[in-house]
Amino acid sequence: MSDDNSGSGYVESEYTRDSKYLSDRITADGSSGWQVEPGRYRLVVARACPWANRSVIVRRLLGLEPVISMGMCGPTHDERSWTFDLDPDGRDPVLGYERLQEAFLARDPQYSRGITVPAMVDVPSGAVVTNDFPQMTLDFSTQWTAYHRDGAPDLYPEHLRDEMDDVMQRVYNEVNNGVYRCGFSGSQRAYDKAYQRLFDALDWLSERLESQRFLMGGQITEADVRLFTTLARFDTVYHGHFKCNRQKLTEMPVLWAYARDLFQTPGFGDTTDFPQIKEHYYVVHADINPTQIIPSGPDTSNWLIPHDREQLGDAPFGDGTPPGPVFEGEEVPADHGPGGIPHR
Amino acid sequence: MSDDNSGSGYVESEYTRDSKYLSDRITADGSSGWQVEPGRYRLVVARACPWANRSVIVRRLLGLEPVISMGMCGPTHDERSWTFDLDPDGRDPVLGYERLQEAFLARDPQYSRGITVPAMVDVPSGAVVTNDFPQMTLDFSTQWTAYHRDGAPDLYPEHLRDEMDDVMQRVYNEVNNGVYRCGFSGSQRAYDKAYQRLFDALDWLSERLESQRFLMGGQITEADVRLFTTLARFDTVYHGHFKCNRQKLTEMPVLWAYARDLFQTPGFGDTTDFPQIKEHYYVVHADINPTQIIPSGPDTSNWLIPHDREQLGDAPFGDGTPPGPVFEGEEVPADHGPGGIPHR
Repeated sequence: MSDDNSGSGYVESEYTRDSKYLSDRITADGSSGWQVEPGRYRLVVARACPWANRSVIVRRLLGLEPVISMGMCGPTHDERSWTFDLDPDGRDPVLGYERLQEAFLARDPQYSRGITVPAMVDVPSGAVVTNDFPQMTLDFSTQWTAYHRDGAPDLYPEHLRDEMDDVMQRVYNEVNNGVYRCGFSGSQRAYDKAYQRLFDALDWLSERLESQRFLMGGQITEADVRLFTTLARFDTVYHGHFKCNRQKLTEMPVLWAYARDLFQTPGFGDTTDFPQIKEHYYVVHADINPTQIIPSGPDTSNWLIPHDREQLGDAPFGDGTPPGPVFEGEEVPADHGPGGIPHR
Repeated sequence: MSDDNSGSGYVESEYTRDSKYLSDRITADGSSGWQVEPGRYRLVVARACPWANRSVIVRRLLGLEPVISMGMCGPTHDERSWTFDLDPDGRDPVLGYERLQEAFLARDPQYSRGITVPAMVDVPSGAVVTNDFPQMTLDFSTQWTAYHRDGAPDLYPEHLRDEMDDVMQRVYNEVNNGVYRCGFSGSQRAYDKAYQRLFDALDWLSERLESQRFLMGGQITEADVRLFTTLARFDTVYHGHFKCNRQKLTEMPVLWAYARDLFQTPGFGDTTDFPQIKEHYYVVHADINPTQIIPSGPDTSNWLIPHDREQLGDAPFGDGTPPGPVFEGEEVPADHGPGGIPHR
């Protein structure tokens, strides 16, 4: 989801995110009107965006690359749209668009809400099917099962769903969105409350992760994916830019080891692009960073320090396996990884 | 020195500090026209300001409180002047002024340059004698010797002066002023250069302090005072607000232990007011923090963690002694210290 042109606003100077968009589902049985079908849909993302980063990770963990292609917008956008400025001629090679907005207008010529990533686009019509990011990744897990790779993990296990939905809801309210609530507070009072809520939640998560390797136990689930994308941006952006500065992630030992554990797992660190992340936030939010100068720090080489969490469980993918190498053409450039150390 | 209304500007988008102000000296022999004399001068400071903080520390280390009184401005100021808004009726009780500007105009009715702290004011005439902060503290050491307390340290030892002047010049150019050069860069290029210069200098200092307890050896000198006031503001302000974010001070082990060592020494931590520091920078610099929202973090309780640097030398005051308790009425409020732990 984009950060600025997503319908959002203020209620008593507290930032609120309006996330009601195009919410069709793509289903295995096609009952929704959109049938799961290899090659038919294109996932449009921006590496910078945490909500899009989720979908990139889940797609890779499940091995959906051969059946759902991926288009990538650049890190910045103007008031109206993300753009395909990373592509050589400034156009997405499959959709032919310069601006993601074109895919939203193809769906609804009157569309006036947020032009957001991630978006699933129906390639034949060039129209957005859904930009409902929380449902999108769950559907990757539950509707695209026929196309999961061998050894793909179950990221949304049935027996855990009730608890997992609660955990993910709290992570969303207090953490994923909580950092934005801090950064976009309209008053000192709203900020102070937002800060308290955020760090209360991080303390809760830290306690939860002290004796179990992942959020739902010994195996990686979608709940971890969702927490990871915020933690990966914490020191790089949220700590300074959004004033989430009780501590850096590096100063919260349990969460920092947990985040490194995920980062060092195929699918996580190898889809994280620190320079794009920084450029996005510091350039797009000129209202809180009027100079648009991008900080050089932090040093990210420490993401590769051993995490020593294997002792809490040694099967992050359960009976399954980690994904293989990143697909050609989808690699994060080596020098966009931690501290110049070649990125996987 | 104030940060905004000090004549400063940009040369090729690099921030430059103009520090030529009123620079009379107060001397032991009175040859300058201003004679050292107990009770005659008032030191006007703001706890927030690093340049003023120097003078507060040196005055206390030398025990000059009984002979040089101190007036304290609040943490924020408008475009024209620091104000005595902390005093019950908004007026300095000795000078009777509401605005420090009045003392500058008493000296020169045409005065049009920076209204800065620290300033030494001649109480009988109510006029600023000097706001030349680097000379001011050296003169506390060399001209006011007759009034130093028993056991006062020699903060500017003759046999070290040549080397010390070089070290202090480099610390000033690259660190004290270097953080401002980062924060007020007018372009990405200027910022990137400024950041590199700052952290190169911090690496040099870290190396220097690895095997010696203080900058000039085993004893505290003015060079340490000057480095301390920047380090004390590093994580609280410069890391985020000025984008000095390669690491936090807490992530630079040698400098962090060195800074804690000083903080835990009477004269340093007990003159450091974190809330005033934060309020100053985040409110006054609306150009880089348009919301003027003040971050809640960082947690500063870690300033009291043992530093283990006694092994490098156990006589921080040489043959002398640490200063006694803070003078009544000059205490930093207990809850303005590290993390709610009572401040010395």
